[in-house]
Order: sequence, then C-alpha cells, then structure tokens
Amino acid sequence: MKFTVDQIASLLEGEVVGDGSVEISMLAKIENAKEGEISFISNPKYEHFLYSTNASAVILKKGFEPKKEIKSTLILVDDPYSCFTVLLEEYHKFISFQKTGIEQPSFIGENSTVGDDIYRGAFSYIGNNVKIGNNVKIYPNAYLGDNVVIGDNSIINAGAKLYANTQVGSNCVIHSGTVIGSDGFGFAPQKDGTYKTIPQMGNVIIGNNVDIGANTVIDCATFYGDATKIGDGVKLDNLIQIAHNVEIGNNTVIAAQTGVSGSTKLGENCVIAGQVGIAGHITLANKTSIGAQAGLGKNIKEEGAQLMGSPAFNYKDYYKTYAIFKNLPDLNVRLKQLEEKVLNLPTFQEK
Amino acid sequence: MKFTVDQIASLLEGEVVGDGSVEISMLAKIENAKEGEISFISNPKYEHFLYSTNASAVILKKGFEPKKEIKSTLILVDDPYSCFTVLLEEYHKFISFQKTGIEQPSFIGENSTVGDDIYRGAFSYIGNNVKIGNNVKIYPNAYLGDNVVIGDNSIINAGAKLYANTQVGSNCVIHSGTVIGSDGFGFAPQKDGTYKTIPQMGNVIIGNNVDIGANTVIDCATFYGDATKIGDGVKLDNLIQIAHNVEIGNNTVIAAQTGVSGSTKLGENCVIAGQVGIAGHITLANKTSIGAQAGLGKNIKEEGAQLMGSPAFNYKDYYKTYAIFKNLPDLNVRLKQLEEKVLNLPTFQEK
Amino acid sequence: MKFTVDQIASLLEGEVVGDGSVEISMLAKIENAKEGEISFISNPKYEHFLYSTNASAVILKKGFEPKKEIKSTLILVDDPYSCFTVLLEEYHKFISFQKTGIEQPSFIGENSTVGDDIYRGAFSYIGNNVKIGNNVKIYPNAYLGDNVVIGDNSIINAGAKLYANTQVGSNCVIHSGTVIGSDGFGFAPQKDGTYKTIPQMGNVIIGNNVDIGANTVIDCATFYGDATKIGDGVKLDNLIQIAHNVEIGNNTVIAAQTGVSGSTKLGENCVIAGQVGIAGHITLANKTSIGAQAGLGKNIKEEGAQLMGSPAFNYKDYYKTYAIFKNLPDLNVRLKQLEEKVLNLPTFQEK
Repeated sequence: MKFTVDQIASLLEGEVVGDGSVEISMLAKIENAKEGEISFISNPKYEHFLYSTNASAVILKKGFEPKKEIKSTLILVDDPYSCFTVLLEEYHKFISFQKTGIEQPSFIGENSTVGDDIYRGAFSYIGNNVKIGNNVKIYPNAYLGDNVVIGDNSIINAGAKLYANTQVGSNCVIHSGTVIGSDGFGFAPQKDGTYKTIPQMGNVIIGNNVDIGANTVIDCATFYGDATKIGDGVKLDNLIQIAHNVEIGNNTVIAAQTGVSGSTKLGENCVIAGQVGIAGHITLANKTSIGAQAGLGKNIKEEGAQLMGSPAFNYKDYYKTYAIFKNLPDLNVRLKQLEEKVLNLPTFQEK
Repeated sequence: MKFTVDQIASLLEGEVVGDGSVEISMLAKIENAKEGEISFISNPKYEHFLYSTNASAVILKKGFEPKKEIKSTLILVDDPYSCFTVLLEEYHKFISFQKTGIEQPSFIGENSTVGDDIYRGAFSYIGNNVKIGNNVKIYPNAYLGDNVVIGDNSIINAGAKLYANTQVGSNCVIHSGTVIGSDGFGFAPQKDGTYKTIPQMGNVIIGNNVDIGANTVIDCATFYGDATKIGDGVKLDNLIQIAHNVEIGNNTVIAAQTGVSGSTKLGENCVIAGQVGIAGHITLANKTSIGAQAGLGKNIKEEGAQLMGSPAFNYKDYYKTYAIFKNLPDLNVRLKQLEEKVLNLPTFQEK
Repeated sequence: MKFTVDQIASLLEGEVVGDGSVEISMLAKIENAKEGEISFISNPKYEHFLYSTNASAVILKKGFEPKKEIKSTLILVDDPYSCFTVLLEEYHKFISFQKTGIEQPSFIGENSTVGDDIYRGAFSYIGNNVKIGNNVKIYPNAYLGDNVVIGDNSIINAGAKLYANTQVGSNCVIHSGTVIGSDGFGFAPQKDGTYKTIPQMGNVIIGNNVDIGANTVIDCATFYGDATKIGDGVKLDNLIQIAHNVEIGNNTVIAAQTGVSGSTKLGENCVIAGQVGIAGHITLANKTSIGAQAGLGKNIKEEGAQLMGSPAFNYKDYYKTYAIFKNLPDLNVRLKQLEEKVLNLPTFQEK
C-alpha cells in the first residue's frame, strides 16, 4: 500500500496543509508513528505529540491552530476519528485481499464450486458439494465438511473447522481454531447408569457480517431441519461455547470465555461480558446486558435489563448487596454487640 | 439412506397402519417433518401436529385413536420415544460409516497399522508405531503422534490432536480441535524467580464409549508409567480443561468450560455442570453432582452429594444462603434500626 | 536413551553403590519403576518403596543407611530431588530433539529461512519472509503466517496457529491448538445498532523460555507498531484468553481458563490461578497473587497482594467474609430473634 497524502485527502474529502506528494504506506498511533506513516489527533490532550511525531502525515480537525512548528503534512477534516476509521477499513480490505490463488497441496471434493478471486491455502480441505462465493479466503489447514456454504468476501482463518452442512453468510470472519457444527451435548441416560449418544443431525447457520474469534465452539442443532442460528452482525470473541439449538439475535456481542447452554435464545443488540454462563432453554429480551462472570438462569423479559452476579440480578442491586457482603464481618460484630447489649438489659434478664 | 416404512416397522417390531411401501430417507421433528421423513409422538400434548404434519410416517403408541384424518403412514409401537432413539442410533451409525478410504495426501509413519474399513482424510497425520482398529475414521487435518492406539469404531474428527502415546478405546468420538496428551502444567520455582519446566512423560488413557467435545484439552500425566485416565462411558463437553494425572470414573458427565485441576479423582456417575472449577489433589465420591459455576476445593466423601457455590457446599443450603445474600441491603437496614432502638432504650442509656 | 548408572552418577557428581554398569533407559516414580529405570527418594516417608522397587537404580541422599537388603544400584548425592530434576531436563532435551528433518508434504513460502537441525512435520505451513532459528521443531499441521519469527530451540506443537507477524523467542514451547495473533475484539458501535470492525494491525511478541499450553488464545495489538507482549519465562496453561495489547511481566504464571482483558498490564512474578477474570485497562503490581475463579476489576498497586472473590479483595478478608456468608441463614435467624426480643421489651413497647 503506497498512496500520496493528496490521494488520501481526496478519499477523506479533507484539505491538505503542506506537501501533498509525500508517500504513505501505513497507519499508526501518533506517539509511535514513523516516516511514511499517517496518524490522527481527535482528542486535544494528545496535541503535544503533534510537535514531536515522525508521522509523515497527521489528520486533524478543521480550524486547528498549531502552537509550534510541525514537520508533518496535515489533512484537515470535519471528524478526524471517523476519517481514521475509514482509512483503517480501507487498509483492512487491502490486506484481506492480499492472499489469492490456490496453494498446493490443497483438497477439494466432488461437486464443489468456488467463486472468483478465491484464496485456498495449502492443506485446506473442502469436502463434497461445498458452495463458496467470490473473494473468499480459506487459510491453510482449514476444514470445510460436505455441503458447507460460504458467502462472498468471508474469511476462514487457518485451522478453523466447519462440520458438514454449516452455512456461513457474506462478509464474515472466522478465526483460527474455531469449530462450527460439532455435535451438541446430548445423551440419554440409561437404567444401568450409562448414556446413549443422541445423534446430532441439525446444522449451524451464520448470518452476514459476523465475526467469530479464535478457538470458539458452536454446536449444531439436534434435529434434522433445525439449526443453531447466529444472526447478522453478531460479534463473538475467543473461547466461547454456543450449545446446540441456541439462537443469537442480530448485532449481539459476546466477550471471551462465555458459555450459552442449549436451546437458549438471545435477543438482538445484547451485550454479554466475559466468562458469563447462561443456562439452557431461556430467552433474553433485546438489549440485555450482562456483567462479567455472571450466571443467568431465568428468562429476561424486560428490554434493556442490566444484570450482575451468579445467579444474576439487577446490577445496581448487585453492587449494593456486594458492598454489604464485603462488610459481613463488621455486620456480624455489630449483631453480636447488639445481642450482648439486649441480653444485659435488666428488664430482659428478668424474663 | 432409503428404507420403506415396512422395513423400519420390522426393525422396531411395530405395526403398520397405512401404506408400508412409502420410502423414508430422514428423521425429523413432527412440526418440521417433510415428505420422505419419519417422526414420532410420545407426549400427547403434541398430538395436534399429527393432523397437519407432512411426515411420510409417524411412530405412535399402540392403542392410539386418531381424532381426525391423518395423511401419514403410522407405525404403532409400545414405546415411541425409545423406538425413535433406535432409529437415531441407526442413522448415526449410517452416517458415521459414510466416509471410507484414504484421501491423498495423508501421512502415515513407520510400523503403524490400521484395521479394515478405515477412513483417513486428506492432511491427516499418523506417526510411527501407531495402532488403529477397524472402522476407525480419522478426519482431515487430525494428528496422531507416535505410539498412539485407537480402538475399533472410534472417530477422530477434523483437526483433533493426540500427542504421542495417547490411548483411545473403542466406540469413542473425539471432536474437532480437541487436544489430548499435551504437557501438564508443571514448573519448579527457582530461587531467582524463574521456573524450570518439569518434563511431562506420562500419557492419557481413554476408555470405551467415551465422547469428547470440541476444543477440550486433556493433559498427560507427569511421570512415565502414570496416566491421566478417562473411564468408560465418560461424556465431556466442549472447552473443558482436564489437568495432568486426573482420573475420571465411568459414566461421569461434564458440561462445557469446566476445569479439573491436577491429580484430582472424580468418582463414577458424577454430573458436573458448566464452568465449574475443581481444585487439585482432591477426590469426589460416586454420583457427586455440582452446579454451574461452582468452585470445589475439598474432598467429597459422601456418595450423591449435590453442591453449589464457590467455594461449594450443599445446594439446598446454598440456595437458602443466596436468598439472604440478595436481601443483604434489607438485612443491613433492619440491623441499623435495631441498633437505634436499643441505643434509645432508657435502661440502656443509663449504663 | 540408554546410559549406564556410572555415566548418570558422573553427570550428577554422585557416588555409586552396587553395579555401575547397569543400563538405564527411562525415569519413573519409585513405586512404578521397572527394570531398566531409575528413580529417586527424597522424602524419608517413601523409604519403604526402596526395599520392594524393581528400579535398576535409585538416587538417594548421602549418608543414607539401608534397613533391609536392596536390589537396586544406588547413586548417593547431596540433593536427590534436584538431581532427579536434572535427569528430567536431560530427558526432556533428549526427546525434544528426537524429531528432525522435513516430512513431506510440507509448505514453505518465499524468502523464508530456517536454521540447522530443524523439524518440519508433514502439513506444516510456513508463510513468506519467515525466520526460524536453529533446533526448532514445527510439528504437523502447525501454521506460521507471513513474517513470523521463531528463536532457537523453540517447539511449535501440532496444529498451533501463529498469525502473520508473530514473534516467538528462544526455548519456548507452544502447545497444540493454541492461536497467537488473532484479531483483538474491537468493534466501533454505529448509530443503527451495528458494529464496524476495527482492523487489528499490531502483533504479538513472546519472550524467551515461555511455555504456552494447549488451545490458548493470544490476540494481537490493535495498532501497527504496538504489540501484545508476553515476557521472558512466562508460563501459560491451557484455554487461556489474552486479549489485545495485554502485557505480561517476566516469570508470571497463569493457570487454565483464565482471561485477561484488553490493554491490561500484569507485573512480574505474578501467580494467577485458574478461571480468573481480569478486567481491561488495569495494572497489577509485581508478585500479585489471585485465587481461582476470582474477578479483578481495579489496579493493584501494592506488590505481593493476595486476592480472592469476584470482585476480588484481600484473600484473608475474603475467607472471613465467606465464612459469614455461609452462615447467613443463622445470622438472619439471630437478627429476627433479636428484633422480637427488643419489640417485646416493656420499656420499648411503651414508646
């Protein structure tokens, strides 16, 4: 990636102050930026970095008045932060599309079709009857079982594993080591104390614009015709457990190491923190928010509820309660003192 | 898979009502079933689906009297649920045995032997001196280190990794991304604050009929001659941590994201929920049951104990305790009021 | 590995009692040891094993006086435990260096260099511009993206995945399924409820003598030029989550299933137990110690603090508090009794 400051300013509809022919090859934070790099200042408290930075270009808010001499070329815009985000996205697209072609050896089964501009890394495996869209990247050692479907522009990172019949939408990113479509945890107890495995015959259906972190697991649904469903725009972090038949509404975000048990339905735009446990067969309303390490065991019907604790309840009540919990030794002492006082009361001793 | 209703009824020892020559190719839930599919009704509350289903056949209890017209062919049996389970198992066997043969490229080292009807997926790796039984499926990108042993009918899913010397019994399923036999977490602290790695030389021995979910980890034992042991019929979910030298008794079931620390011994037929933490060097009696997110730090000697909380104690006591915990702000107010009342008592003030 | 007892005694600077020409091929615990194996006794309470062991040799403390006849050859040393540790390390080096050479098919991109005595397993993938030191072992199905750097004597186990630009020092061990350099969890909320992915352009830098368990995830830093940093001598267990821009000080040890959120800085020589959650953007002083399942949400400035609970506080206070928590039903009864007594006081009733 090499662009002139003029080219970048034109993309951002900004005004260049200084040498617009300077070449830029990377983005960086203002305090780390080196020659050939572009940065931005949105918060005035970082202004002092502007006078010492080695960045070749800096994006600033229109109307900015420098207090000292500046080496860098400036691009003046209405909203420096959102302009920098645009550049980040462009950069992301750029590197996403660096890898193309088919490395050997790689494997593709029968009746499978792939779109244009695809990347298939070495040792990637594509089973039979797989359908892959345009601009899809399948990194090395990734596994796509039979009948898998992948939409346009999606990225399957190295060593991700998609069991047979998994469906992934467009513009998705699935990180390394993540497993999608493994058997749900279903075993029928027998009279002799053993368990019979209940075959898991459903699949996983993932919407568009979904990001899934590394080493996360999403189990398939139990019955044929059913699916574990991940809605559009959902963002899942690393090491998350999503059990069989779970449904996650659009734009819900879940942080690392959280687990959602079987058949639970999460609403849209929920925000679930890390290491949370959510019981099976419950339903969470839209915009439910759950704090870290909480354990949720019941339906949440009210939209926008904020929960903490295990078992979880309203987060404000939880904080009040926890404050007293921390002082339980004091409370216990107070109770003892009161007991002694009351026992020592003359009228009481007479009874 | 295509069978006639007559063939299926014969397997289930059931009685056919309607056209027994209808062909069935899949199992499904009564509300989702389509033409060519078979379903069942066990619970009378789902009877209404019977009159609208598109299932080509439905398994029902003998003596059932329909209230309306039914399109589907019926199979009448003594126990519809267990008959459906039989079909699920047959289906499971069927799809398990779909994959056979050796895809290329795959790797097999020296002195390794494989049984009949094996599947070795592309990019699967089998080291030296490995012994693999009959009807074993090694999916793509799976790794079996030197001296690994796998019993008959076991399935090693895509990208599972078995370190050298791991032993797996018969009829086991190991899901994608699971790691078995990695080094136990053993480091000897040195005077300068650094740690020396204690080599981990034992292995992992897994019994028969064991199911292990995706991205779970089972560490090897520390000493040569010792093993981390997983008993017959054990069911482990996804993302579980089993540390070095742990022993898990037969038919114990552990849900997702639970961790068991080093050298701990779990009895038989225990039921451990998700996100539980179990300390090292402790022993749990048979049929111990532990609730979600609990933390267990001590031996459980009594068979059938049911525990909750972190640190965990009897679950009934835990619920009582938690109920008061939730009301701590009220309890605190009551204590304050009492303190004020007692302080205001005339006799008390005289002291 | 086959050495005579004389050779081993010479390495340990010990004195041989018995036949020094006996050949040893393995280390074992005294109670399990077989012919051809060497063991040790450090704790006198295990002395009784000495008279029944089948070990060909046993390491003992100088000055030991046997009470019965002993079959084994003895090696007398100043410190049997540390001598045994030396042998464990020698054994570890030995087996670490068993695998050498390049198995086919394996993949190496352009401009990548590898040192001497390397092992590259079948289906291992090395991208472009990768630099690998001497005596490095890359096991089967491992993935090293572009520009990865690996120092001397490091071991990348089967199926570990290192994203582009990851740097690993010397003498490191990375276990199977671990993912290093995956995208940090960064999404900018939009007004319509969707999220924009913030490209993650930094990398991960791992020091020397670092051990990382299986199926752990370490995300890359957000900005180009920044790194998620793992210090020298750090030991990470299995299934750990290390978020973007985290820094872990030298010789810090973290047990399984713990998560550290974005931009948090852990000091040196910290000891973090299993299933702990640590919030983002906080700093922990050196030698901070955190108990299992704790949740830490604030800076720890005092060196050597020991914490428990979620939210965590001083562990002694936590245990006191938890003891009263367990007795809350009793405490509640006491409070009720007191309320009744005070209400029944004659002077009180008059008010």
